[in-house]
Amino acid sequence: MMNIPLLVSSMLERAERYFPKKTVISRTSSGIVTHTYKEVGERTRRLSSALEKIGVKKGERVGTLAWNHHRHLEAYFAIPGIGAVLHTINIRLSPAHIVYIINHAEDKVLLFDEDLLPLLEKVKDQLKSVEAYVLMTDKEELPESSLEPLFHYEKLISEGDPSFEFKKDLGENDPVGMCYTSATTGNPKGVVYSHRGVVLHSMALGLADNAGLSESDIAMPVVPMFHVNAWGLPFASVWFGTTLVMPGPYFTPKILAELIDSEKVTMTAGVPTIWLGLLNELEHGNYDTSSLTRILCGGSAAPKGLIRAFESKYKIPFIHAYGMTETTPLVVLSRLKSYQNDLPEEEKLEIRSKQGSLVPLVEMKIVGANGEVANDGKEMGELLLRGNWIADEYYKDERTNEAFRDGWLYTGDVVTIDEEGVVKIVDRTKDLIKSGGEWISSVDIENALMAHDAVFEAAVIAVQHERWQERPVACVVLKDAAKEHTTKEELYEFLKPQFAKWWLPDDIIFMDEIPKTSVGKFLKRALRDQLKEHLSQVK
Amino acid sequence: MMNIPLLVSSMLERAERYFPKKTVISRTSSGIVTHTYKEVGERTRRLSSALEKIGVKKGERVGTLAWNHHRHLEAYFAIPGIGAVLHTINIRLSPAHIVYIINHAEDKVLLFDEDLLPLLEKVKDQLKSVEAYVLMTDKEELPESSLEPLFHYEKLISEGDPSFEFKKDLGENDPVGMCYTSATTGNPKGVVYSHRGVVLHSMALGLADNAGLSESDIAMPVVPMFHVNAWGLPFASVWFGTTLVMPGPYFTPKILAELIDSEKVTMTAGVPTIWLGLLNELEHGNYDTSSLTRILCGGSAAPKGLIRAFESKYKIPFIHAYGMTETTPLVVLSRLKSYQNDLPEEEKLEIRSKQGSLVPLVEMKIVGANGEVANDGKEMGELLLRGNWIADEYYKDERTNEAFRDGWLYTGDVVTIDEEGVVKIVDRTKDLIKSGGEWISSVDIENALMAHDAVFEAAVIAVQHERWQERPVACVVLKDAAKEHTTKEELYEFLKPQFAKWWLPDDIIFMDEIPKTSVGKFLKRALRDQLKEHLSQVK
Repeated sequence: MMNIPLLVSSMLERAERYFPKKTVISRTSSGIVTHTYKEVGERTRRLSSALEKIGVKKGERVGTLAWNHHRHLEAYFAIPGIGAVLHTINIRLSPAHIVYIINHAEDKVLLFDEDLLPLLEKVKDQLKSVEAYVLMTDKEELPESSLEPLFHYEKLISEGDPSFEFKKDLGENDPVGMCYTSATTGNPKGVVYSHRGVVLHSMALGLADNAGLSESDIAMPVVPMFHVNAWGLPFASVWFGTTLVMPGPYFTPKILAELIDSEKVTMTAGVPTIWLGLLNELEHGNYDTSSLTRILCGGSAAPKGLIRAFESKYKIPFIHAYGMTETTPLVVLSRLKSYQNDLPEEEKLEIRSKQGSLVPLVEMKIVGANGEVANDGKEMGELLLRGNWIADEYYKDERTNEAFRDGWLYTGDVVTIDEEGVVKIVDRTKDLIKSGGEWISSVDIENALMAHDAVFEAAVIAVQHERWQERPVACVVLKDAAKEHTTKEELYEFLKPQFAKWWLPDDIIFMDEIPKTSVGKFLKRALRDQLKEHLSQVK
Repeated sequence: MMNIPLLVSSMLERAERYFPKKTVISRTSSGIVTHTYKEVGERTRRLSSALEKIGVKKGERVGTLAWNHHRHLEAYFAIPGIGAVLHTINIRLSPAHIVYIINHAEDKVLLFDEDLLPLLEKVKDQLKSVEAYVLMTDKEELPESSLEPLFHYEKLISEGDPSFEFKKDLGENDPVGMCYTSATTGNPKGVVYSHRGVVLHSMALGLADNAGLSESDIAMPVVPMFHVNAWGLPFASVWFGTTLVMPGPYFTPKILAELIDSEKVTMTAGVPTIWLGLLNELEHGNYDTSSLTRILCGGSAAPKGLIRAFESKYKIPFIHAYGMTETTPLVVLSRLKSYQNDLPEEEKLEIRSKQGSLVPLVEMKIVGANGEVANDGKEMGELLLRGNWIADEYYKDERTNEAFRDGWLYTGDVVTIDEEGVVKIVDRTKDLIKSGGEWISSVDIENALMAHDAVFEAAVIAVQHERWQERPVACVVLKDAAKEHTTKEELYEFLKPQFAKWWLPDDIIFMDEIPKTSVGKFLKRALRDQLKEHLSQVK
C-alpha cells in the first residue's frame, strides 16, 4: 500500500476542490459575513504566503488570540500549511499567564482580535520572541498602536499569493498546533498536536456513531477556537464540506439562539454552562430551533436535568462527550446502543448522562491504588488513555512525568466503566472528598442537586474536618424564580432518599454565582478560597 | 502526540470489550447459527494460537477458500492477529489460476470450505508451499480425504487458547492481507493490503457521508469475502459493533430476500448483477424489505433503471460506489450534496447514477494523452488514484510498472470529473470503442439499453471494422416476459433520440446470458471470442 502522510492541508484542499460553493458564515463586530470554501481556500493560501514573507519557518510557532470567526479559521490552515505550528492562546487567561505562554511557546508572530490590542500593548515589552503582530479586523485602517511591526490582516493577505502551494514535505507526526491547559497550581502546560492526530481525530468526528459530522450539517462551534481547536470541529467541518457558523466575539445566549434560528444550525458544541444559558433564553424568547439535530456537550459533566430539558421539551438530542486538552479532545461520547432503545425513558437518560463509550482508535483502562480495576460499573479508578490523538508529554515541562507514564496518559479523572465500556466520571482525583477513609463523589451530589427544579447550578467541595478529615459542602445557585421560597431544608429532603447519610453535605450555601475557569468549568479552588472564612464559621 | 500503530487486531478487541452481546448471524450448510462478538473473539484467539502451533510465522501467508460465514470472519482476524497475511482466494477462478495464486503467494496453510475439497484434492500435488489444510465444516468428523495433514476447524480451535494475546509488535505498514485480481491476459495479479490501509479504510466506511456504518446497523455483505475483503465490511462491522449477517454458500436471490426479511438487514452490499436478481425476486415474492436503509452497489456501473426501481418502488436508497481490488476498494461513492436535494427527481437520479465523490484521504486526477485533463464533466481521461489504501505494486509481478507510475495508480478506467468532483466512468480504457478516430463509450450505450423496460442486461463490445477501425455491437438479454414481443427495431428506436447516429451499434444481438467474470462483471473478452463468427456473418 502507498503510505501518504496524513496532513491537515489536504483537508482544506478537499473543501476547495469538492465543496467550493459551501460556506463559512461568520459573525464579526461589523455584522455577518459569508465566504465560500473556494474563497476561504484562496484567503488561506494568501495568508500562508504572507506568513512566509514575514519570515515564519517550518516548525516555528504562530500564536492566535481570537474568537471564532473566518479569519481564525484561515489561520487554522494557513499556519500548518507552511509547516508552522498553530498556537491558539486562551484569551481568558490572566495577562501573566498569556505572557508566560507566548514566551514559553516562543511565538514568532501573533494574530489577534482588536479587543486584545490593549492587553498586548500593555505586555509587549515582556514578550521575548514575537517579531510581528497581525491585527484581524473589519476596519479599513489600523488603529494607533505601540505594537511594532503591526500588520493589517486584510492588507497583508491582499498582497499574498492566492495559489500558494501548501508544504507537502512534512511528516505526519510533525507538530500542527498547540494549546496550553491551566494547571491547578503553577503555569499552564502546553500540549502539542500532530498532523496525524488531528486528521484521525477529524475522521472520528465524521463517524456515524460519534458526532456524525456531514456535508449536510450546518455546524456552529460555540466552544472557543482558542480551546482545544474548538474540539476539532473547524478541521473536520472543512474536510467534510460542512457549513460552518462562527458565533464571533462576546456572544450571548440570545445571539446563539438567533444564529441557530436564522442560519438553520443542525449541530452545535459547547460546555454545559452555555447550554444552561441557552435553555434559559429559549424559555423566554421565541426561537425556531427545529433545525438542530444534536447538541454536543462536554468540558464538564452535564446535569441530567439539562439533558432532559433539551430532549423532552425541545426535541433536540443532547450528546454528552468527554475529553481534555491533552486528548485533542474527543475520546468518549454517549450514545445508546441499538438494543437499549426500548428501555424506559429514565433508564435511557441515566445511560446518556454518563460520559459514554470509547471512540474507535482510543484505548482506556482504569487503575486504583492496587493496579488495574474491574470494569463492572462499580469500582472506581483513575482513567488512563492511549491513542494517536493523546498527548505524550507537556511541551518542555517537567510536569510531563506526573501525567504521562508507561505509555499512558493519567487523566486525573476518577471514573467507573461498566461491562459494556460505558464510562462514568465520578470526580477529579483532586476533587474527590475523602471522608473517614471512604470516598464521596462531589460530582454525584452536584448532579443530584442540579436535578432539583429550583437549582440553576451547584458545586460541591471538600472542607477540612477534624474527625472525618474531609466533609462535603454544597454551593448552590438558585433559579431566579425560586430564590424567594427555596430553603436549605427543602434541598436536604430532596437529597436524603438518594444518598447514604454520610454523603449528605455538611452545609448548603446559597450564592449568586459559582466562579468558573476560562472555559466555563467550576473553579473549585477559587470556591474553597472564597469560602474558607464562611466555612470556619459554619463549623 | 502518541504514535500507536493502526492494527487490525484492535478492531476485534473493541468488539469483544464494548459490544460483547452483539452478534454475527451466519447461514451455513446446516442452517443459521449465531455467535456473539464475545464468542467470535474467543474463537478467533483460539484459531490464532492454533495457527501458531501449526507453525505459521509472522509475515507468512495463510490462504482461505471460503464463502461468507463466521469461520471466515474468524480467519480475517486470527491470521493478522499473529502477524501473518490473510490471503483470500477467489474460489470462482479456474483451477489453474487457483494453483498459480497459491504457489505465487506461497501459502503455508489453507483454510477451506467443504465444497472446495474435490478441487484441492485434484490439485494438491501442484501446490508447492502448503504444509497443512484446515476444513471449515459443520460436520462432526472429517471426510475421507487424500489431503495431508488435514485438520478439522472446530477440533483445531477447541484445543486453541481462548485468551491468546494478539501480536502487537507489528508495524502499521506491515501486510495484513492479500487478494489476486484477474488480468485481461495472463495470470492474476496480487495486491497486498496493509494494517494502516485497512484501518483507515474501515474508518471511511463509518463516515456519515459514506457508508455510514453504525452499531445500529445489521449489515449483510453479499460481495464475497474472497473478493477485496468483501469491500472491507467485515473489518469495519466488527470494529463498530455492527450486527453481521453472512449469507453463506450458494445463496440465491430468494435466500437473500429471506435473510433481509427475517434478520431485518439494514444495509447490504454487492455488484449490480446481485441486485438485478434480487429485484426480480422481490417482484415475484412477498418480502418485507422495509428494514433496509441502503444498498451499496459497486464492482461495475449500476444501470439507472436499477437505481430507480429500488428507490421509487421499494423506497430503498441505492448508493453507487466505485473501487477495485487495488483500492481496498472504496474510493468514490455517490451521495447528493445537501443543496441538490431540491433538484427534480430525474436530475438527482442522473447525479446518483454517476460513480460519485471522492472519499476523504484519497486523491485523484485524470490524465489524457497530453497530461492532466480539466475537471469540467466533459473531458475524458484515465483515472489516477493515490492514498493510504491504494496499492503501490503488484506482489512480485513485473506488471507493477504498467499500473503504478509517479506515485499514482493508473486505474485503466476512463472517466470524466465535473466541477464539484463527481466522477463518471465512461469506460475501461480497453473497452472504449475507437470509431473513425473518435471515442464511443460502451458503458453509455449499455446503460441506455438497460433503461429499456424489456431489457434485463446489455453489454456493448467493439468489433473490428475495415473502414471505421472499430464499431459497437450490443449484446442484449431480454426479460422473460418481454422475450416474445421485443424486436431489434424497437430498441433502435429507443436509442436513436439519445445518441449521435454514429454511436448507434452496428448490430443488436439477443442472447440468453452474458458471460461474466468470477465477481459478476461482464466478461467482454469472452463475449468477443464467442461472437467472432456470428459477427463476421453479420458484417
